[in-house]
Amino acid sequence: MRVGFIGLGHMGSAMAERLLAAGHQVTVFNRSRAKAEPLEAIGAQIAQDVGSACAADVVFTMLSNDQVVENVVFARGGVIDSLPEGAIHVSASTISVALSSRLAAAHAGRDQRYVAAPVMGRPTAAAAGKLFVVAAGDQTALDEVAPLLAAVGRRTVEFGPDPSSANLVKLSVNFLVASVIETLGEALALVGKAGLDREHYLDFLTSTLFEAPVYKTFGPLIIQESPEPAGFAAVLAFKDIRLAIAAGEELAVPLPVASLLHDRFVELLAAGGANLDWSNIGRRGQHDGAPKTVPQNHSAAAA
Amino acid sequence: MRVGFIGLGHMGSAMAERLLAAGHQVTVFNRSRAKAEPLEAIGAQIAQDVGSACAADVVFTMLSNDQVVENVVFARGGVIDSLPEGAIHVSASTISVALSSRLAAAHAGRDQRYVAAPVMGRPTAAAAGKLFVVAAGDQTALDEVAPLLAAVGRRTVEFGPDPSSANLVKLSVNFLVASVIETLGEALALVGKAGLDREHYLDFLTSTLFEAPVYKTFGPLIIQESPEPAGFAAVLAFKDIRLAIAAGEELAVPLPVASLLHDRFVELLAAGGANLDWSNIGRRGQHDGAPKTVPQNHSAAAA
Amino acid sequence: MRVGFIGLGHMGSAMAERLLAAGHQVTVFNRSRAKAEPLEAIGAQIAQDVGSACAADVVFTMLSNDQVVENVVFARGGVIDSLPEGAIHVSASTISVALSSRLAAAHAGRDQRYVAAPVMGRPTAAAAGKLFVVAAGDQTALDEVAPLLAAVGRRTVEFGPDPSSANLVKLSVNFLVASVIETLGEALALVGKAGLDREHYLDFLTSTLFEAPVYKTFGPLIIQESPEPAGFAAVLAFKDIRLAIAAGEELAVPLPVASLLHDRFVELLAAGGANLDWSNIGRRGQHDGAPKTVPQNHSAAAA
Amino acid sequence: MRVGFIGLGHMGSAMAERLLAAGHQVTVFNRSRAKAEPLEAIGAQIAQDVGSACAADVVFTMLSNDQVVENVVFARGGVIDSLPEGAIHVSASTISVALSSRLAAAHAGRDQRYVAAPVMGRPTAAAAGKLFVVAAGDQTALDEVAPLLAAVGRRTVEFGPDPSSANLVKLSVNFLVASVIETLGEALALVGKAGLDREHYLDFLTSTLFEAPVYKTFGPLIIQESPEPAGFAAVLAFKDIRLAIAAGEELAVPLPVASLLHDRFVELLAAGGANLDWSNIGRRGQHDGAPKTVPQNHSAAAA
Repeated sequence: MRVGFIGLGHMGSAMAERLLAAGHQVTVFNRSRAKAEPLEAIGAQIAQDVGSACAADVVFTMLSNDQVVENVVFARGGVIDSLPEGAIHVSASTISVALSSRLAAAHAGRDQRYVAAPVMGRPTAAAAGKLFVVAAGDQTALDEVAPLLAAVGRRTVEFGPDPSSANLVKLSVNFLVASVIETLGEALALVGKAGLDREHYLDFLTSTLFEAPVYKTFGPLIIQESPEPAGFAAVLAFKDIRLAIAAGEELAVPLPVASLLHDRFVELLAAGGANLDWSNIGRRGQHDGAPKTVPQNHSAAAA
Repeated sequence: MRVGFIGLGHMGSAMAERLLAAGHQVTVFNRSRAKAEPLEAIGAQIAQDVGSACAADVVFTMLSNDQVVENVVFARGGVIDSLPEGAIHVSASTISVALSSRLAAAHAGRDQRYVAAPVMGRPTAAAAGKLFVVAAGDQTALDEVAPLLAAVGRRTVEFGPDPSSANLVKLSVNFLVASVIETLGEALALVGKAGLDREHYLDFLTSTLFEAPVYKTFGPLIIQESPEPAGFAAVLAFKDIRLAIAAGEELAVPLPVASLLHDRFVELLAAGGANLDWSNIGRRGQHDGAPKTVPQNHSAAAA
Repeated sequence: MRVGFIGLGHMGSAMAERLLAAGHQVTVFNRSRAKAEPLEAIGAQIAQDVGSACAADVVFTMLSNDQVVENVVFARGGVIDSLPEGAIHVSASTISVALSSRLAAAHAGRDQRYVAAPVMGRPTAAAAGKLFVVAAGDQTALDEVAPLLAAVGRRTVEFGPDPSSANLVKLSVNFLVASVIETLGEALALVGKAGLDREHYLDFLTSTLFEAPVYKTFGPLIIQESPEPAGFAAVLAFKDIRLAIAAGEELAVPLPVASLLHDRFVELLAAGGANLDWSNIGRRGQHDGAPKTVPQNHSAAAA
Repeated sequence: MRVGFIGLGHMGSAMAERLLAAGHQVTVFNRSRAKAEPLEAIGAQIAQDVGSACAADVVFTMLSNDQVVENVVFARGGVIDSLPEGAIHVSASTISVALSSRLAAAHAGRDQRYVAAPVMGRPTAAAAGKLFVVAAGDQTALDEVAPLLAAVGRRTVEFGPDPSSANLVKLSVNFLVASVIETLGEALALVGKAGLDREHYLDFLTSTLFEAPVYKTFGPLIIQESPEPAGFAAVLAFKDIRLAIAAGEELAVPLPVASLLHDRFVELLAAGGANLDWSNIGRRGQHDGAPKTVPQNHSAAAA
């Protein structure tokens, strides 16, 4: 398939590379051309503008926030102006539910098709094709892009015909991840300040009730000295928490833990942590002393 | 070994049965004798009072809260008065860090030994010997009781020489579980009110980042109509959240999500829910309508 | 002075009436003309459109939210297009800090002047000329509009040359008022459920440490049966709390009580209370039983 | 009247002095005798023990927390053992609702009488006889002690026959005061970080809707450099918030702002602030820079 790809940050570049590796004909566009060049070296065409990238069967956008997506899509010569009739826009960015609904309506007005397909995973997972993809939209469009989504992720989970459902799911997932960071941070502060060995405690959690990737990934990030470079910057995570709260406002669903997370991010940003990894909201500086007690013999397996 | 067992609620009875099945000589005591009789039928001796149950190498207590433990242990003719020198008291109850420290001191003053060994799991897990046991205390005592703990649980995880460490860990775990219930409840309310299929959403979560027993157990409890009978009553879970907050006060560790959970439990209790399962703090009555959208074809596996 | 007045809700109508009573020549505009007619009867001119209302020395806008203000000001033929050079736009609406800054820049670009002058008080206070006015902007502009502000309020308090400062102050005040409603609601629920006479309790508070208009106004609204019609609708108060939180985000100031109020308003809106008075966030249905105890002799004055 | 007075901290000493000044015969007791001596110099008798101080018509206790009151009242030779039949114990300490109920029952069992009469005000107010007294108990006992309470306070407000009602009211008041400190602190951080003059802002608040002693007292304490020495130590205020939350647990009333205050106090204590004035929970170190904008001409009074 002829695929356009707009937005070549860490995530976008890795995804475009996966599409090339799967044998698709990919034309890429990025505001600063330098990020496109490594892809050209492995077979991509570089488009001179957004419009040229849209001369395709399917165009992906992978951009950092609502405002950038709005500019790229709605500007003169943008995606709406340029995408052929019947072609599909796959929005992989984490954007608001409201903007996703506006995109759906705008594409429908031009007889274009629109699929929301935000992805879950850190840049290393993207490079390895191990993202999870959350997709929603018209079923025939979903079926057509399924091979492309299969190239970028290890699995696609679909959420019905309304594209904004996928965005809501993605925001709820980032809310749940941030909740794990915060609550695990509180628990680690508690046992750490009591002198327990926090790594042993984490091993215990992640080998019993909490044996899940989210605890295994973020537990060590919370307790290590410098959880950098950021896999996902606090300022972007903060944006997602705000979008989750906005979705809750729209649906009249109170999200008290999301509100608490909101304030934790504001504190982190106030302290200059915008570009730190979001796992930093789980860190409590004053409690990170050396443990007082190190058990000799942690675990006695049951016979 | 000669084992005494005091406290035969759902959990205690199942644990005593496991000890009998492992071939130990078990003497049981319960305030109301009726609960002891099924155990007599399978080989237990019934003690007439706490003191008689303490004529043993090891005595377990499995009681509902601090106050009951205090009564059983410190009363005239109680555990402290009755346990032989050198014998071991294994406290499996979920009690406060502060009481556990008092027990440790009191036993030391009588040349008795003390191990804190709270357990994780619902009554069905106890009956199947699938509890996780969190243990702390003097290493030789831990080693001596290891076969007993192996009989009641599938695995014992040790947390060093200070018995109260095990109680702190147990309280932190119940805090983390309650946090999962609350945050998953918020996320389910959000996607459910948007019309998404909540079971499909749960399947998605528990097969990706949140693939852990805690999400798999509590997700369905939150969305099903009547999560009863209670595996763990709200009023007991509320007690544990209060004890976690009290431990945080003692160690000067703020636990903002625990405070929020505290208030959710007070609301539930105010609404008459003391004996409902604790998963009810994750339920939001007004959002539990029928989903508006049921996807036809949920998931497209990656090729 | 020739004064234009755009926006004739409860507050706007009362303010325009005060300006007429003070002898100014007032041209009014409202989207639905019916609301303008009572003012015509007492001497106002009715403008056919926004532009005509702007043929003045000073034009007031008193509109319900950011979006309406944006439409009225930035639309073709709106305030920016129509206001003469050197004339002053007085924005009395409670709007975001960000929009106020945009208005300031836009007016400066057309050599117009701009004063932000949000008001404090309920419609009855507006009718009586007893509002407090919070004003900010260029000092000479403030001085020129001072007589007009003196006509609508009992006192004007100025906050320097940056117009958006006045909007920030207004939002902070509504945050503080909502905080009083919530905390007083919690205290009244506590003493009320214990059986104390809530009116006696309120008398006590408002004659000692809490002897302030805000407690005297909102205390009775919280405990009375039907605090309607709304002096200030919950949905508008919610908007202001969101704008206060947005200002906190911009300045990197966490506002945890504002976040909590946000969630209380979402709950109230979810329960269908959008048009109820905002004092309803302080009400707790289940606690409003009859007091168990009615003191005979409430107070013994000190000799 | 013959009056015993137990507990001579800042507040107790000032109250005892007021009783002496009103012409009563006062016998004082304090654990460390040194604090009693200044009162002896102005006419008090010094008792050698608690029991001797109880040889009186009325005995006051003014002690720092539940535990000290329990010791003084229930110990062998304590108030219960020593107070004559028919005599009255006036407990002016801020204690839990639960302990106050226990005191009521214990005194009733000895045919003694009991009045709870906690006081509101800082030590300087106590010295000036300007406290507010919150009293509850049997009406004839209240009437008998009314002249004594009139000597220590400027006004007594009664809350019916159940003594613990007075304790509940006192705790609710300290909750409301702490709420004002926190919310005013948030508002001051917001306007301060925007560059507004915080003193001008406070003047505005306390001359309009928030014209109450509580705002006038605590506003300046929040913004001044070193709000010390403590008029009321954070560790004691924290105790009262915990007791308010405990009362809410008992009555099944959620107090979400109290929970938030609880966590603010834990943070302050974790940072070493136990003995700082409680107004410190309203301070945000990082926001306390010099204002960017100082208005020249703050206020234009309405003509």
